Amino acid sequence: MSAQDEASGRTLILGGVRSGKSRLAEQLARASGLPVTYVATATASDQEMGARIAAHRQRRPADWGLIEEPLALAAVLESCCGPGRCVLVECLTLWLANLLWAEEAGRLQRELDALDALLPVLPGQVIFVGNEVNMGVIPVNELARRYGDLAGSLHQRIAAQAQRVVLTVAGLPLVLKGPPLAGVA
Amino acid sequence: MSAQDEASGRTLILGGVRSGKSRLAEQLARASGLPVTYVATATASDQEMGARIAAHRQRRPADWGLIEEPLALAAVLESCCGPGRCVLVECLTLWLANLLWAEEAGRLQRELDALDALLPVLPGQVIFVGNEVNMGVIPVNELARRYGDLAGSLHQRIAAQAQRVVLTVAGLPLVLKGPPLAGVA
Amino acid sequence: MSAQDEASGRTLILGGVRSGKSRLAEQLARASGLPVTYVATATASDQEMGARIAAHRQRRPADWGLIEEPLALAAVLESCCGPGRCVLVECLTLWLANLLWAEEAGRLQRELDALDALLPVLPGQVIFVGNEVNMGVIPVNELARRYGDLAGSLHQRIAAQAQRVVLTVAGLPLVLKGPPLAGVA
Repeated sequence: MSAQDEASGRTLILGGVRSGKSRLAEQLARASGLPVTYVATATASDQEMGARIAAHRQRRPADWGLIEEPLALAAVLESCCGPGRCVLVECLTLWLANLLWAEEAGRLQRELDALDALLPVLPGQVIFVGNEVNMGVIPVNELARRYGDLAGSLHQRIAAQAQRVVLTVAGLPLVLKGPPLAGVA
Repeated sequence: MSAQDEASGRTLILGGVRSGKSRLAEQLARASGLPVTYVATATASDQEMGARIAAHRQRRPADWGLIEEPLALAAVLESCCGPGRCVLVECLTLWLANLLWAEEAGRLQRELDALDALLPVLPGQVIFVGNEVNMGVIPVNELARRYGDLAGSLHQRIAAQAQRVVLTVAGLPLVLKGPPLAGVA
Repeated sequence: MSAQDEASGRTLILGGVRSGKSRLAEQLARASGLPVTYVATATASDQEMGARIAAHRQRRPADWGLIEEPLALAAVLESCCGPGRCVLVECLTLWLANLLWAEEAGRLQRELDALDALLPVLPGQVIFVGNEVNMGVIPVNELARRYGDLAGSLHQRIAAQAQRVVLTVAGLPLVLKGPPLAGVA
């Protein structure tokens, strides 16, 4: 196995709201020792989201690259992933929500297909963060059910391709796949 | 311990929406090497549910038996469980929802009592699938709260009787009770 | 390490609705062998909650102390925690809800600050019970989102200070931090 192979890998960090998933993802990115690009799918559409984005930004090292992209995730990953690089995607579920609301016919499926095609061949380290949204009462709202179905399926597909999958609960990591976590606290 | 004793056991697979619980249950049923009966509690009451049922059906081996029963679960289990047989029940939480909506006085409690009485003496392999619905914000709706209470209590009672309990997250199994999973991927 | 140090520690038990978190907390309190004070944050504001409180009360040993306090949790802990004592707090998320509804300007933040200040220096055994409410679909309601944020953050802060953190699912404990559970079934 070449050095390049060793350094490549996909990680999925899942967790509920305020479960510590972003912090863990950032620790793993830092611990990679590689140059990091942070891909933010959030848009500061309202004050509350703006405040969350600002808080996340303040926590990140100043030398990390930043790409803000609500929809074209595969295209962004294709452009910024590479051997010896680490890319952190925050977050998948927000990206899905953006696509559901985008109201551009066929866009959602095209973006999902593009990511699925890209996943097995992405070079370098890629860390995906996703919200676990499917362990509550099934929503009455049909769009919310569709969202849950899409999120669960996407998490499954990424988990199947990932070398490491972690669920965070109360700030603590529960490793679902791959080696135990070391070097993060 | 006789071969029959070894082959008997109850398994509970819990998981959120699209977490891979059905697929895992089906893999375990197949891995048992026993003739399988699939007990479906879903009813094709609307188009969306009809599509889900059809997708599940397509995935199952053609030689599995199929019993569709939304309410009388204990009676069905009594008739189809047996030594050297595997029965897969999908799913418990839907069965509870059917009973809550059935509006037949006393039916819910009678069915729960019948299942509780049967659980310790069921012969053969029985695999129960349930939806984890209780890790979200407590619902404002009183019926939804009652549903959550019933589901949580039922899962606890079956877990206490089960030899193996697994929570699925993003398609990955997290064993909560019993031996690690082998022979399924 | 003195006997007093060995006997001191903070435990956090998280779990969804009817997941067995209260029962586990009570078993751990009993297994401590120490005199126990039960701090209840619930108020019997309606019939349903009254019934839940009564069921909890019936399960507890008669010699446990009982303090009912919906808001001033830090003050109560300061008064009843001590070396050679075990205090069980049930539950954190209800306490947060009480504070959110209290409509007393600044009270919520003052109470959170007081608990944060107290946590590192609490003597004796303290067992906190919290509801995992953040793994469902993000609520549309802004107050519910704020509640989820507060609950997740609080659980993280207590988990960071705790020697043991356990998530209960279907009545089964999943240890997230600290030594495996023994002496409870």
